[in-house]
Amino acid sequence: MFKILKTEGKARRGEFSCAHGGTVQTPVFMNVGTQAAIKGGVSALDLKNVGCQIELSNTYHLHLRPGDKVVRQMGGLHKFMNWDGPILTDSGGFQVFSLASLRKIKEEGVTFASHIDGHRIFMGPEESMQIQSNLGSDIAMAFDECVENPARYEYAKASVERTLRWLQRCKVEHDRLNSLPDTVNPHQMLFGINQGATFADLRAWHMQEIAKIDCDGYAIGGLAVGEPAEIMYEMIDVVEPFAPKEKPRYLMGVGTPSNIIEAVARGVDFFDCVMPSRNGRHGKLFTWEGNVNIMNEKYITDDRPISESCSCPVCRSHSRAYLRHLFKADEVLALRLAVLHNLWFYNELMAKIREALDNGTFADFREKYSGNLEKRA
Amino acid sequence: MFKILKTEGKARRGEFSCAHGGTVQTPVFMNVGTQAAIKGGVSALDLKNVGCQIELSNTYHLHLRPGDKVVRQMGGLHKFMNWDGPILTDSGGFQVFSLASLRKIKEEGVTFASHIDGHRIFMGPEESMQIQSNLGSDIAMAFDECVENPARYEYAKASVERTLRWLQRCKVEHDRLNSLPDTVNPHQMLFGINQGATFADLRAWHMQEIAKIDCDGYAIGGLAVGEPAEIMYEMIDVVEPFAPKEKPRYLMGVGTPSNIIEAVARGVDFFDCVMPSRNGRHGKLFTWEGNVNIMNEKYITDDRPISESCSCPVCRSHSRAYLRHLFKADEVLALRLAVLHNLWFYNELMAKIREALDNGTFADFREKYSGNLEKRA
Repeated sequence: MFKILKTEGKARRGEFSCAHGGTVQTPVFMNVGTQAAIKGGVSALDLKNVGCQIELSNTYHLHLRPGDKVVRQMGGLHKFMNWDGPILTDSGGFQVFSLASLRKIKEEGVTFASHIDGHRIFMGPEESMQIQSNLGSDIAMAFDECVENPARYEYAKASVERTLRWLQRCKVEHDRLNSLPDTVNPHQMLFGINQGATFADLRAWHMQEIAKIDCDGYAIGGLAVGEPAEIMYEMIDVVEPFAPKEKPRYLMGVGTPSNIIEAVARGVDFFDCVMPSRNGRHGKLFTWEGNVNIMNEKYITDDRPISESCSCPVCRSHSRAYLRHLFKADEVLALRLAVLHNLWFYNELMAKIREALDNGTFADFREKYSGNLEKRA
Repeated sequence: MFKILKTEGKARRGEFSCAHGGTVQTPVFMNVGTQAAIKGGVSALDLKNVGCQIELSNTYHLHLRPGDKVVRQMGGLHKFMNWDGPILTDSGGFQVFSLASLRKIKEEGVTFASHIDGHRIFMGPEESMQIQSNLGSDIAMAFDECVENPARYEYAKASVERTLRWLQRCKVEHDRLNSLPDTVNPHQMLFGINQGATFADLRAWHMQEIAKIDCDGYAIGGLAVGEPAEIMYEMIDVVEPFAPKEKPRYLMGVGTPSNIIEAVARGVDFFDCVMPSRNGRHGKLFTWEGNVNIMNEKYITDDRPISESCSCPVCRSHSRAYLRHLFKADEVLALRLAVLHNLWFYNELMAKIREALDNGTFADFREKYSGNLEKRA
């Protein structure tokens, strides 16, 4: 299922097999399609053209709209959104704690109000597994509590203990659902999620505990939520020795290109982040030469592509001047082109990281790019 | 330049040659890209995939943003938007009279306030020709006054006389600009525009007068602005005998599929309309079986394409259920897919009209579809 091809320091070059779409080459960036569509007018078909290997959708959003039972009735998420590659669904935990309001957390799960129409919803480990089973994703994520940083120690401790109990319940329910005769994807995998806020002892204890439960991979959650990057790197260093070597590791919701390079260096294999699409929608474009703010006046008659070293579909066809015009004229096409370019960049970033690992030159790659890709071009 | 291949009654099957992109098969629907982009996130490259033969952009909008001098500096509109097929630019006249405010009309031209930032702009026949020359379109439209319907007779008469004088000035300026050594497109053509509100005598007189000026084609403007379709058809019937037979006729801003079929039957060759993109953005989709409102609850688990008889890129890949979800979830991708489908439908409508004319079966086609394509599917 997960095969490590090569290592360089703690960095790992691997291959991960899913029920859909063959083998994912890792380290990998999952392209985010929250509501079974990529923000900015990008379809699953477009993902093929920007080098996406694996797509991520959101359990919370799809439970609300169109409803996971609708998606199930339509044959599951792959068929619904017309994407035949691997899909990871998050557990809904993060959104319950970041988007929903009027939350009440109990041992059974969380009651909250929909951010769309305020109706009351209950979600616990079993409900999260059931929704993800209906969606039929390749990888389901365990239901967890994502504690805000900075957190009180006592709260974080109680929470992480509960998140461990929730994982045990997730595992039981996930196994049960996979074995049902009419399940959408009987090969669905389950990743556990490490929590513990920014407390090293809680993080380490929790990772040791969840490692005892046989999951298909292990995520590190609750980071990149406002704490300095150094704290995030420290937490990865703290948990990495306890994360099973033979299973993939996924750093949730991270991050900038340099964050990703640094996390790969610390042994992480999977990433996802809204940054390429969100920044793109604001005209902020990633390039190997640094960031381009396409709204800038200086691009008004610049007939070069966003980046002369980029061979994405947008850079092959359109100029900075045209893209700037589209943003200034409030054309929806601006969002689409910017998001396509940024997703290509993130997918190419991962391809170059893999290439460096293949060649044994990742240390040089890290030296050259880490800390530099976020500067202004 | 324009060659009539076949006729059936007054309907004409023709071919029109432009400086860019070879030969346009007529009757043709021009796909509208107001600001050098098609609303809803559709690019010039996408137009190739929905059967578009000729694109239309708006002089008024491009003069304001990014500015026609910017477009000229970028090598003209074709290069700027990366579309190598024919482009028609309207004259700005219609927008000056429909979008701008604080209008003052004099013999020289019109002073008005930009709808974007209120700054005062003067546009007369010479300015319109200069802007369109900077854009480098294949077909420039004469600068005209588009009188509101219903109009007072005396006003309409004075206006149409002025519009004739403006055409004479357009022609002189257009010839001068085309002959400049550094002109963007020295082969730019000029179409005159017939006006006269809904007064048959003014319409007929004006068409006879503009026919004396050697234009490359003749448009009928100022219709489909609120008057009943029957009045529009009557006006076409009134002017058609005076429109030069050997030149293409263009009915501006029209219309529904049935409007187009009826106008073809009356001898019209060129069309444009925002309807496919605007309706699409509101979830209203054209099909050969009638209109589909994709927001309808009944499509929530409908896994059929928008139309089972459609082979557009959207119908080949996505279900009604998915498209409905995208609209309900406010995903920009909804707009893109709906607009692509509707543009394909309009382009296919024209292809089928041409095929019927080729086969001598246009009367049957008209009988079958006119008045029926706007019904609910």
